[in-house]
Amino acid sequence: MAPQLDSYFKQVDSLSDHFIERLRKAVAIPSVSSEDERRPDVVKMGEFLAEQLKALGASVELRPLGKQPHKEHLDLPPVVIARYGSDSNKRTILVYGHYDVQPALKEDGWATDPFTLTVDDKDRMYGRGSTDDKGPVLGWLNAIEAHQKAGVDFPVNLLMCFEGMEEYGSEGLDDFIKDEADKYFKDADAVCISDNYWLGTEKPCLTYGLRGCNYYSIEVSGPGQDLHSGVFGGTAHEPMTDLVRVMSTLVDSSGKILIPGIAELVAPLTDEEKSLYGDIAFTMDNLYESLGSQTSLFDNKERTLMGRWRYPSLSIHGIEGAYSAPGAKTVIPAKVIGKVSIRTVPNMESADVNKLVYDHVNGEFAKLKSKNKLTVSCQHDGKWWVASPKHWNFTAAGKAVEHVWGVKPDLTREGGSIPVTLTFEQATGKNVLLLPMGSSTDAAHSINEKLDKKNYIEGIKLLGAYLHYVAEEPMKEG
Amino acid sequence: MAPQLDSYFKQVDSLSDHFIERLRKAVAIPSVSSEDERRPDVVKMGEFLAEQLKALGASVELRPLGKQPHKEHLDLPPVVIARYGSDSNKRTILVYGHYDVQPALKEDGWATDPFTLTVDDKDRMYGRGSTDDKGPVLGWLNAIEAHQKAGVDFPVNLLMCFEGMEEYGSEGLDDFIKDEADKYFKDADAVCISDNYWLGTEKPCLTYGLRGCNYYSIEVSGPGQDLHSGVFGGTAHEPMTDLVRVMSTLVDSSGKILIPGIAELVAPLTDEEKSLYGDIAFTMDNLYESLGSQTSLFDNKERTLMGRWRYPSLSIHGIEGAYSAPGAKTVIPAKVIGKVSIRTVPNMESADVNKLVYDHVNGEFAKLKSKNKLTVSCQHDGKWWVASPKHWNFTAAGKAVEHVWGVKPDLTREGGSIPVTLTFEQATGKNVLLLPMGSSTDAAHSINEKLDKKNYIEGIKLLGAYLHYVAEEPMKEG
Repeated sequence: MAPQLDSYFKQVDSLSDHFIERLRKAVAIPSVSSEDERRPDVVKMGEFLAEQLKALGASVELRPLGKQPHKEHLDLPPVVIARYGSDSNKRTILVYGHYDVQPALKEDGWATDPFTLTVDDKDRMYGRGSTDDKGPVLGWLNAIEAHQKAGVDFPVNLLMCFEGMEEYGSEGLDDFIKDEADKYFKDADAVCISDNYWLGTEKPCLTYGLRGCNYYSIEVSGPGQDLHSGVFGGTAHEPMTDLVRVMSTLVDSSGKILIPGIAELVAPLTDEEKSLYGDIAFTMDNLYESLGSQTSLFDNKERTLMGRWRYPSLSIHGIEGAYSAPGAKTVIPAKVIGKVSIRTVPNMESADVNKLVYDHVNGEFAKLKSKNKLTVSCQHDGKWWVASPKHWNFTAAGKAVEHVWGVKPDLTREGGSIPVTLTFEQATGKNVLLLPMGSSTDAAHSINEKLDKKNYIEGIKLLGAYLHYVAEEPMKEG
Repeated sequence: MAPQLDSYFKQVDSLSDHFIERLRKAVAIPSVSSEDERRPDVVKMGEFLAEQLKALGASVELRPLGKQPHKEHLDLPPVVIARYGSDSNKRTILVYGHYDVQPALKEDGWATDPFTLTVDDKDRMYGRGSTDDKGPVLGWLNAIEAHQKAGVDFPVNLLMCFEGMEEYGSEGLDDFIKDEADKYFKDADAVCISDNYWLGTEKPCLTYGLRGCNYYSIEVSGPGQDLHSGVFGGTAHEPMTDLVRVMSTLVDSSGKILIPGIAELVAPLTDEEKSLYGDIAFTMDNLYESLGSQTSLFDNKERTLMGRWRYPSLSIHGIEGAYSAPGAKTVIPAKVIGKVSIRTVPNMESADVNKLVYDHVNGEFAKLKSKNKLTVSCQHDGKWWVASPKHWNFTAAGKAVEHVWGVKPDLTREGGSIPVTLTFEQATGKNVLLLPMGSSTDAAHSINEKLDKKNYIEGIKLLGAYLHYVAEEPMKEG
C-alpha cells in the first residue's frame, strides 16, 4: 500500500520559503575546506548544522577528527553525527552528506556573489554549495521539520553523518566510519547518500555504480637544476622530451588505452547489460551541451554511456615542474612529473592495474635509452563500486521517485568516484544508495553553481517519501 | 706598441672597495623588470646610473620608450644613453648593457638576501644582478673613473646604451636602436656588449656567434571548459592526449629533431671549423658540473660544443592550461598550449623553419583523427648571429685579454640568443663584439647569482684595456 504523503507534501510546499531561507543561511557561511584561513567558517557551518538539528529534536554530536595531516597547525573540522528517533520497530537509515564547499571567488567569473544565495527569474538558486552539498544536507533537516509541522509520524530512525572535508579528500573520515560502524552507526539497515546529480535535467535517477580511480605520477629527472635551453639544448638529455614520449604511449586520440593487459581486466559486456543503455534518458545533445562542444569520441548514446560508466579511461592531467604560465620561457625543466589517471571498472584490481602501468612505463622509458631517471608511482587509488539495484533500498527509492516526479528513475552509474560510498558499504556491510537531488546543469565545482528551486523542494519531498517507502519494503535483501 | 696601462690598472686596484660599494648600491635597488610593482625600482636604477654618469662628466639622457605593450597602465623604464668624450680624432665605441634584473626571492632558495651584495670568504659577491648585468654595466663607469683618477687620457669616445627591460624581452628597444643608429649612435665605429659569460671558470673568451630561437605555441582545444575526468573520461577527445602525441613526434631522447627538412637547412661542418673545437678550454667535467648531472647527450667535448653552438636543438618547455601544481587533480583541460622552441643556426631562415614546423605538426595532428582543433604558431623568433672574429674590434679585445689575464682568449659562440646583438649589427652596420666579464658558474637567472671579485676588478681593467687597444688598431676592417 502506497504511503499517504499528501499532508507531508503540502507542508513542504507551504514551508518552501522557510527552507530556501535555511539554504540561504548555509550558503552565506563560506565553508571552504581547502583554504586554511576559511577553517573557522567550516567549523561555523558544522555548528550551524548541529544547532538546527538540535532545534528539531535530534541528538547531535560534534566529533573531532584531530589535526589535519601535513598541516599540524590546523584542526580538522568536526564530523556532525546525529540521530533522530530510536524506535526499534522502525528501520534505521544512515544518511551522509558534507557541509564544506569548493573554493569560489566572484572574480573567477561568477555572475553573482558566490556566498549570497541569489534566485533568478527561472527559479535557479545560485550560490556555492547550493547543490554540492548544502541543499541535499538541509533536505534531510527540512524533511524532519515538515513531518513535525504536518503532524506525520517520521517513518524511520534517521542516523546522520555530515562531514566538513569532502572537498579536500575527506581527511580522517574513513577511519571514523570504520570505527563507528559497530557503534554509532550499528543500527543502520541501509545507507543513502545524496551527493551526486541526475544524468540530465528532466529525469531523476538512482545511482548504483561508480568508477574507481588510480592516479599516477611519472617523474623524470636528470639535471641538478633547471637549465637554459640556449646553453644546454643539444647537449643534455631533456626530462620533458622523455616524459612526453613515454606519455604518448599511454592512450591514443580515440581514447583507447595502449597499456597492454588493461583491456583484459575489464568485465565483458553481457547482452543483458547492453540492453539497459538504450532506455536511459540521455542524448548526444546532452553530452554536447555539457562538453560545450561536439568533440565526442562516439556518435551514439549507448557507447558514450558505456565509455563513462563501464569502461576504463586514461586521462593525462598535466605536468608538474614544466613551464606552465602564459608567455614564453626558454627553460629545460630539471624534473617533471606527469599526472595521469585511469578510471577503473569491474573487475580491475588496483594492484593488477598498477603492475601493468609500471611495467609498461618502465619498458617504454628503457626503449628511449636516456640517461635521465624515471620513477612511476600510484599517488592514490580508490576502488570502483557497484551495488545491487534490486535491494529494497533501491526499490523504495524508485517508488518514491515515481510518486514525487511521476516517472520511473533511470538506474545509472557514474564515471567519477565518491570514495565514501565504498567506505560505507565496506564498513557497515549494508546496501548503499546514491539518491541525487540536483541536475546535470548545476555546475558543482564550477562558477555559478546552482540548485533549481524545483529540485530542492521536490527533492525534500523525495527524501521524505523515500523514508516512507523504506519503512514499507519487505525485509528480504535484494 | 702596447699601450701603457700600469697606472690605470693600479688605480683600479686602489679603487676596488669603492667599485664594490658602487655595485652594492646598484644591487640594493631591486630593478625587476618583469614585476609590475617593481617598476618604480627599475626607474630608480636607471636614474641612479644617470646620476653616476653625470658625476663622471658624461652627457646623459633618459629616453622614454612609451607605454608597455599589453600593460598600458605601465610606462616602460627609460633607456639611459650617454656619451663620454667627443674627440673626432678618437674612435667611438658604443657599449650596451642592461640595468634590470631577473626576479629573486629569498624563499626561492637564496643563501643570502638577493638584494644585499654579500661577499663570502672566497671573494664571491652574491646578489641579483651582480653578474647579469649590473657588474659589467658599472664596469664601464668604473673604467672612466679610474682613468680620471689616474690622470690617464681616455682613449676613445664612449657611447653608452643601458636599457631597463632586457629580462622582459627588451620591449621597445629595437625600434629605439634603429631610430638612433644615424642619430645618437651615428659616430659608433664598433659595438661592444658585456652581457654573457666565459665558457668555464678559468679562461676568458670573446664571443662571435649566437644561436637564434624560434619559439612555438601548439594549441589544442576541444571542450568548452575544463572537464571532470570521472564524468567525461572515455567519452570525449582530450586535448592533452592529442598535444602529447603531437609533441612526441618533434624530437627523440637523443636530441635528434624529427621534423623532416630541418637538418638539411644546417650549414655543413667544414674540416676547418671542425679543427677549432679541440683547442677550446672546455671539458666534459665542466659540462657535468654546470648540468649538475652526467646526463649529457655526447661523451666528448667537441660534439658537445657543436651541439651547443652550431647545431639546432629542440626543447619542450612546458604546457599552459594543463594541471601543473603538486598533488592530484582529475581535470581534463579544455585548452592546452605546448611551448616548444628550436635553437637555430646558420643557414636556417626563420620562415623556412616555420613552414617545416607547421607542416609537420599539422600533418601529425591530422593522423590522430581527433575532433579537437590544433593551431600552431611562432610566438617569437630571433635570428642567429655570427660575426667576423678577425675584425679589429676582436683583435683589440684579444690583445686586452692577453694583457690583463695573460692568456689568449678562446673564440667562442653561444647556444643562447642575445637578440640585441643582431639589432645593433643590423642597425649600425658595425662589428659587434661580445666581451664577457663573469664566468660560467655565476648562476645568472638562478638563485645565488654571483660575480667573483676577481672577475669584476680584472674585468674593469679589461674593459679599459680593450678601449686602449681599440685606439691603436689599424683602420682596416677585418
